[in-house]
Amino acid sequence: MKFAVVGTGVIGSGWITRILAHGHEVIATDPSEGAYESMLKQVKQNWPYAEQQGLAEGASLENLSFTVSLEEAVKDADHIQENVPEIEELKAQVLSEIDTYARQDAIIGSSTSGIMPSELQQNLKHPERLVVAHPFHPVYILPLVEIVPGKETTEAVTVEAEKVYESIGMDVLHVRHEIEGHIADRLMEALWRESLHIVNEGIATTEEVDKAFTHAAGLRYAQYGPFMTFHLAGGEGGMRHMLKQFGPALKKPWTKLIAPELTQDLYDNVVNGCETASQGQTMSELDQKRNEFLVKVKELAEAYWPEDTASMKKGIK
Amino acid sequence: MKFAVVGTGVIGSGWITRILAHGHEVIATDPSEGAYESMLKQVKQNWPYAEQQGLAEGASLENLSFTVSLEEAVKDADHIQENVPEIEELKAQVLSEIDTYARQDAIIGSSTSGIMPSELQQNLKHPERLVVAHPFHPVYILPLVEIVPGKETTEAVTVEAEKVYESIGMDVLHVRHEIEGHIADRLMEALWRESLHIVNEGIATTEEVDKAFTHAAGLRYAQYGPFMTFHLAGGEGGMRHMLKQFGPALKKPWTKLIAPELTQDLYDNVVNGCETASQGQTMSELDQKRNEFLVKVKELAEAYWPEDTASMKKGIK
Repeated sequence: MKFAVVGTGVIGSGWITRILAHGHEVIATDPSEGAYESMLKQVKQNWPYAEQQGLAEGASLENLSFTVSLEEAVKDADHIQENVPEIEELKAQVLSEIDTYARQDAIIGSSTSGIMPSELQQNLKHPERLVVAHPFHPVYILPLVEIVPGKETTEAVTVEAEKVYESIGMDVLHVRHEIEGHIADRLMEALWRESLHIVNEGIATTEEVDKAFTHAAGLRYAQYGPFMTFHLAGGEGGMRHMLKQFGPALKKPWTKLIAPELTQDLYDNVVNGCETASQGQTMSELDQKRNEFLVKVKELAEAYWPEDTASMKKGIK
Repeated sequence: MKFAVVGTGVIGSGWITRILAHGHEVIATDPSEGAYESMLKQVKQNWPYAEQQGLAEGASLENLSFTVSLEEAVKDADHIQENVPEIEELKAQVLSEIDTYARQDAIIGSSTSGIMPSELQQNLKHPERLVVAHPFHPVYILPLVEIVPGKETTEAVTVEAEKVYESIGMDVLHVRHEIEGHIADRLMEALWRESLHIVNEGIATTEEVDKAFTHAAGLRYAQYGPFMTFHLAGGEGGMRHMLKQFGPALKKPWTKLIAPELTQDLYDNVVNGCETASQGQTMSELDQKRNEFLVKVKELAEAYWPEDTASMKKGIK
């Protein structure tokens, strides 16, 4: 298969790595200054982690090409992945160009983390072939992709798109209702807002918040999500017991409910906290350490996730 | 050391397992019908996971005794861990009894997940020796303990308490400000509330929410918390770039901000979702699978957590 990747930042380069690792051809495009060099550097850095996870037959960096011409990148592609910055006007403009130059039967997947597909479809000539296909960083290791069809997307396109993403080793989560932030990012955003409040009020530092998470709940969440975690904390009674015992706590003022003002102080605390925790390690060193870990933890977790998530890979229910 | 464990449910039995595994004596007490048998069953089920993590010299189930008399349980103990149900009046009454019968120099740690220590101290004769020492389930695997001193707690007691918990293999997070839910549970509660909203509005099922978390963010959170995760997602610019790019998204209506009404429908969806995902496995089977995984993932993650969390073990800053 021939993929076009439009926008080659962190997410775009992640997609390129994953697609190449599965033995396909990629034409990448990005109009920014230095985009080609930066993309190539990132893909080469990612590659060892793709290798560790196993390359498909014929997988090679040789299957990657780059052009500054969006038209040239998309005109022969079977599948186009759009990853331009999260600015609605920019997305609309780039998607409209893709729509103009791409083959009519080519599927367009948008990596948008927040915008709803029906919005992205508004001014396309062939809106029926667009889906949101939202991945997670690092795209070449984390398996989840949220597939969200818009009002105009045909079911055939959704089914086909889900097959494409499965063919490059992804676990498809079919999102049946459009909602800003889809599903996974809403959960992360809730966590993020509460973390910001805790730091903003001086209750704890970013390092303490991170430790509070990684040394307890975070270990559990690689295997079970919020629901199964509580189910397992309820003893023999499971979730029934938990809701009976902790349901009333929902009414307590445990969490902050409106996002805090991002003041200079809060900004400084958050930035400095992370930089202190990095202890002089470069972003690239931190990245590599993160990657080494994720490859191992994912392999471990896969054997322990509830079996029936396999059925969710099927996509449309 | 001689520990008394007051209240022998899931958390109490978890503490007993951890303390015994570190070679100490435990006297457990619980007035409920069948408490002894249930506790013994749980501790025996937990024991293999304590063994896998390595037992201290002299560690043995033989060092466990049980009495229905609270006075007898606490009167000679060096350290008392209280784990009675999360009902304020009950906690107050049991802590007052412990206070009456315990040696004056014995430290009292309360496992409360939500109540502030200054509240728990209110009617004690020796309030200075009480701290909140909040663990995470399963207590014999997850290393975090949140230590929260109350207004009346002396610094010497806090320092001593933190040493005790470190001596039984725990990573102490010293919480410098009292707040309902301490730190870690506020984060989990934020996640939990948002998850409930998503299910309540029919956006996704509990299984889908869990998959959205475990197959992406959950894999990351065993290693890095919310802050470092975002720091690493920002590319070379780290958190600075993320706040610039995604700071404005804080104003968007991505998350629901007030806890949903726990209607019968919501209750049913949540309970049934978990039971379906269990696929006929008993709670005990699920528990064992969770334990096997956690022992491995923790070992893996320990090598990859930011080194400076070690400095946080020191407790008081």
